[in-house]
Amino acid sequence: MKKIILASASPRRKEILKQMGVQFSVLTGNCEENPTKTEPAEIVEELSRKKAWAAAGLIAQDCIVIGADTVVAYENKILGKPKDEEDAVRTLEMLQGKTHQVYTGVTVLERKGEEWIPHSFSERTDVTFYPVDGQEIRRYVKSGEGMDKAGSYGIQGYFGGYVKKICGDYWNVVGLPAGRLFYETKKSGINLRG
Amino acid sequence: MKKIILASASPRRKEILKQMGVQFSVLTGNCEENPTKTEPAEIVEELSRKKAWAAAGLIAQDCIVIGADTVVAYENKILGKPKDEEDAVRTLEMLQGKTHQVYTGVTVLERKGEEWIPHSFSERTDVTFYPVDGQEIRRYVKSGEGMDKAGSYGIQGYFGGYVKKICGDYWNVVGLPAGRLFYETKKSGINLRG
Repeated sequence: MKKIILASASPRRKEILKQMGVQFSVLTGNCEENPTKTEPAEIVEELSRKKAWAAAGLIAQDCIVIGADTVVAYENKILGKPKDEEDAVRTLEMLQGKTHQVYTGVTVLERKGEEWIPHSFSERTDVTFYPVDGQEIRRYVKSGEGMDKAGSYGIQGYFGGYVKKICGDYWNVVGLPAGRLFYETKKSGINLRG
Repeated sequence: MKKIILASASPRRKEILKQMGVQFSVLTGNCEENPTKTEPAEIVEELSRKKAWAAAGLIAQDCIVIGADTVVAYENKILGKPKDEEDAVRTLEMLQGKTHQVYTGVTVLERKGEEWIPHSFSERTDVTFYPVDGQEIRRYVKSGEGMDKAGSYGIQGYFGGYVKKICGDYWNVVGLPAGRLFYETKKSGINLRG
């Protein structure tokens, strides 16, 4: 089996791969995160490609590199990480009681001899929140948990308790669409889980 | 705040409540798990009620008791925990490539003075698997991970890597629909998260 490299420092992506039985190392390169695309699905694919290639540039042996990028979108507008607490409050007040989208783009680069073979895709999950009042939102924002996350919340923590339903892959919302990743790579003859 | 009692020994339910910021103790009573109903949604509600009342019978102070029961259903037929490895293989071969349902029933009993006030509901989540071949299924069953679980798999572990999508609450599949639980209890004036 080829060595697997995750080109992401996200502790959540590491946790997902570990939980699903993948053995891997982490290696991140430097890349600009300025997308040239405008559609969320295209942006995450483009950024996952950049991240994967940035790591691949550092590697001289046969291996498989996985890059990923996640964004939250509401009415086709991309919501990044919050600038400050007020920004997080505004974002969560907009999302509460409504359905938004989470997109993750994934690029898998397989090195065969001197060549890298790229595979990219993106996956979308719809997330619907129950109504959440302003006081609850402010209390959550004060906890700091959502401040480093796209959309200002983490589905796997306290704010996940306001999720009414999702439609799509749960792990895609956390940061890596594991089912699709295994399915796509298997179709290309790559076995990530030994 | 009243003391919260989880009437379930399931480590997965404990983990969900902890993760969502609920402080609670665990207390389980004895109850027969023979349902008198036939519809999955009614069965899980009935069993959650039995579990909650069995624990409540042991308690003399004001508190809130939460009982829960989860079943997996395919084409309206209930799939329990597997009898043996062959049974688990048969179940997973039936579910692969298809959509099945997971139902969790929840009963919350709130003690006020001498009286217990009951609230019950059930929640359904649809789970769709990618195609999984017989060899992969046998390897998973051999790992033993699904042998104590309704439907012969746990969504949070290795077999979760074959999930294509879900529609509904993710935590409902793990064993407790956290969002609905918080939403329903809040409507009844009960605050589970402090």
